[in-house]
Amino acid sequence: MISVEEALKIILENTQDFGVEEVPFLESVGRVLKEDIVADRDFPPFNRVAMDGIAVNHRYFEHGVCDFKIEGIQPAGSPQETMENAANCYEVMTGAVLPENTDTVIRYEDITINSLIATVNLDEVVKGKNIHVKGSDRLQGDILIPKDKLISPAEIGVIASVGKSTVKVAKMPKVIVVSTGDELVEVNETPEAHQIRRSNAFTIVSLLEKLDIKAETSHITDDKEQLKEKIAEYLKDYDALLFSGAVSKGKFDFLPEVLEELGVEKQFHRVSQRPGKPFWYGQQNGKSVFAFPGNPVSTYVNCLVYFYPWYAKSTGIRLPKETAILGEDVSFKSDLTYFMQVKLDVKFGHLVATPIKGNGSGDLVSLADADGFIQLSKEQKEFKKGETYPFIRYRN
Amino acid sequence: MISVEEALKIILENTQDFGVEEVPFLESVGRVLKEDIVADRDFPPFNRVAMDGIAVNHRYFEHGVCDFKIEGIQPAGSPQETMENAANCYEVMTGAVLPENTDTVIRYEDITINSLIATVNLDEVVKGKNIHVKGSDRLQGDILIPKDKLISPAEIGVIASVGKSTVKVAKMPKVIVVSTGDELVEVNETPEAHQIRRSNAFTIVSLLEKLDIKAETSHITDDKEQLKEKIAEYLKDYDALLFSGAVSKGKFDFLPEVLEELGVEKQFHRVSQRPGKPFWYGQQNGKSVFAFPGNPVSTYVNCLVYFYPWYAKSTGIRLPKETAILGEDVSFKSDLTYFMQVKLDVKFGHLVATPIKGNGSGDLVSLADADGFIQLSKEQKEFKKGETYPFIRYRN
Repeated sequence: MISVEEALKIILENTQDFGVEEVPFLESVGRVLKEDIVADRDFPPFNRVAMDGIAVNHRYFEHGVCDFKIEGIQPAGSPQETMENAANCYEVMTGAVLPENTDTVIRYEDITINSLIATVNLDEVVKGKNIHVKGSDRLQGDILIPKDKLISPAEIGVIASVGKSTVKVAKMPKVIVVSTGDELVEVNETPEAHQIRRSNAFTIVSLLEKLDIKAETSHITDDKEQLKEKIAEYLKDYDALLFSGAVSKGKFDFLPEVLEELGVEKQFHRVSQRPGKPFWYGQQNGKSVFAFPGNPVSTYVNCLVYFYPWYAKSTGIRLPKETAILGEDVSFKSDLTYFMQVKLDVKFGHLVATPIKGNGSGDLVSLADADGFIQLSKEQKEFKKGETYPFIRYRN
Repeated sequence: MISVEEALKIILENTQDFGVEEVPFLESVGRVLKEDIVADRDFPPFNRVAMDGIAVNHRYFEHGVCDFKIEGIQPAGSPQETMENAANCYEVMTGAVLPENTDTVIRYEDITINSLIATVNLDEVVKGKNIHVKGSDRLQGDILIPKDKLISPAEIGVIASVGKSTVKVAKMPKVIVVSTGDELVEVNETPEAHQIRRSNAFTIVSLLEKLDIKAETSHITDDKEQLKEKIAEYLKDYDALLFSGAVSKGKFDFLPEVLEELGVEKQFHRVSQRPGKPFWYGQQNGKSVFAFPGNPVSTYVNCLVYFYPWYAKSTGIRLPKETAILGEDVSFKSDLTYFMQVKLDVKFGHLVATPIKGNGSGDLVSLADADGFIQLSKEQKEFKKGETYPFIRYRN
């Protein structure tokens, strides 16, 4: 049995490169950028008027001139005008190019206009005021967004503004989520007394969807031949296989045996953690097989703790590492890393994690009551209120 | 000019009910649950074996019996067996029903099996061990997830397990995002020297997509008649209209005038904040019109600060209110609420917000460098490192 840290290390040595594809920029949110986004021109691309008002020549104001004849108007979206008489002014609109021969913008709020004469009602005006100077944000050729960034709405505007109607992103892995277990019936079926409905596979699919991965699902009964036949197919068609169930010590837990018979090289089986201990992980020709134990909380924890970082490293992003402050004393005597379900509260900028009372790894409903897991080290038995531990968030 | 707090209060008095619809459960992540999810049976629905091993009658062990004849096997997914001879044991698999006439499960790890006799290698066994007792998590009829919860992957498993293949969720508002401004060209066009590409509308669309709202977009030139004609249509077809631009004091900022001519009742125009001051908000027959100023950072802040809470209250969810700790002293002398762009770090469970150097409301690229905004009150001028302020997160 290996530790959580060792297990994660092995998994991160077995990441994959899924390649790069080009997608319409509006569909790229949640994807990993695989090219630098470069300024195709200066930002802003011209001396941009930043307030509605008039543009003047500051030296006239300096010399005590307060009245300026309005020579013309410069709307946003029009080619740059030239002010012929340097003593005049130009009406200018936010977003417009600053007219040639002017250097300062005074807001409508600070002037009075009477029969084409603008009178400035200020004692002082700073030269260059209310102008967003060409290239002052970024210069042509600057990298605006470096590759390997996870694209959010904030990046979308930048990508649009440099004219990238399509953008290079990391390809998504082809993933299949396979449930096993003869006790399972479909969601729309009514279970017999000894049966329950399938749920883990759907939980995993939803967790993957948060990463923008569209996974497929399948169910295989606890039959060795069936397992072998189907998994052989999946190994051809998918980059990663995620299983839920059939990895414990039960008589019908054929999965590790079948996987090894199919040539999937076991990297480890069983990790010193609770929940999620019987986790099996192997790989074949660079493809990864994550065989999670079938209890709902075990499956959930393991998907977050192992698959998420594997995906992040494979695509080149850094997922945020969070920590939270324990809200209560906790005692955990076992020689295992404990992933404890917690509610999260933000109090005065502090992330406070309070244990919720779940009934162990089989207690599916407790997942809906919690916001994440606190990772409590197996080297320690007592965990005190106020101490900080790694936090695995699954809900905002 | 009203305050941020007053503006938000007015907007939250003008929320809408979009109604309820039923969707396939796997498509419900990110939606707002509009029915209680109730346990259709006990959780677990039977005394569930929690470990692979043997099931025995504890009183025999109490009387010093260590060897148990294996009478049969109870796999997961099979109807409950009955152990005929109470002195025997049954092999049982995780997820199986506990056989009638047994009350304790002993793990394979703690026994030795020799020619159908299982020998228990423990001095002590707790009665009822390794059994997940019927109804111990939840009872039939219990509310597992209350309505008005935002559905995450954790809820999907619970919804599946009670057999809800479709689930009632809040309907999404029909939203259109309209950009204005003659200086704008499409993303795939090459702008002239005085033009820039459209970007704000796409940023807003992406921000709405984070709420699972699929918005449409449109662009209208700065022409009063065109504006009037198109907006009249949109007011018929959409629940909410979001504009970017044309609300300042410019000569071609027709929007407030046009909206009022079309019978949209102005609730306010201009909010004492930076950026985003010229924000106009109105409503007509319960429909909301958010007219944001056209600068990229202004549009972004206002969408997060006003539209997000409006949507949340309309659908019945509580969006998390976060706070963060200022990482540096900040001085802001203006009489406005300051939404300052910050990078966020989690250090020992503390959310630390460090100002980034943006060039003001027109600096689109700065959005890609930041993680959110800190809201600094207009009642204060000096903000000290270590103090806590409201934090508006836009990236995880």
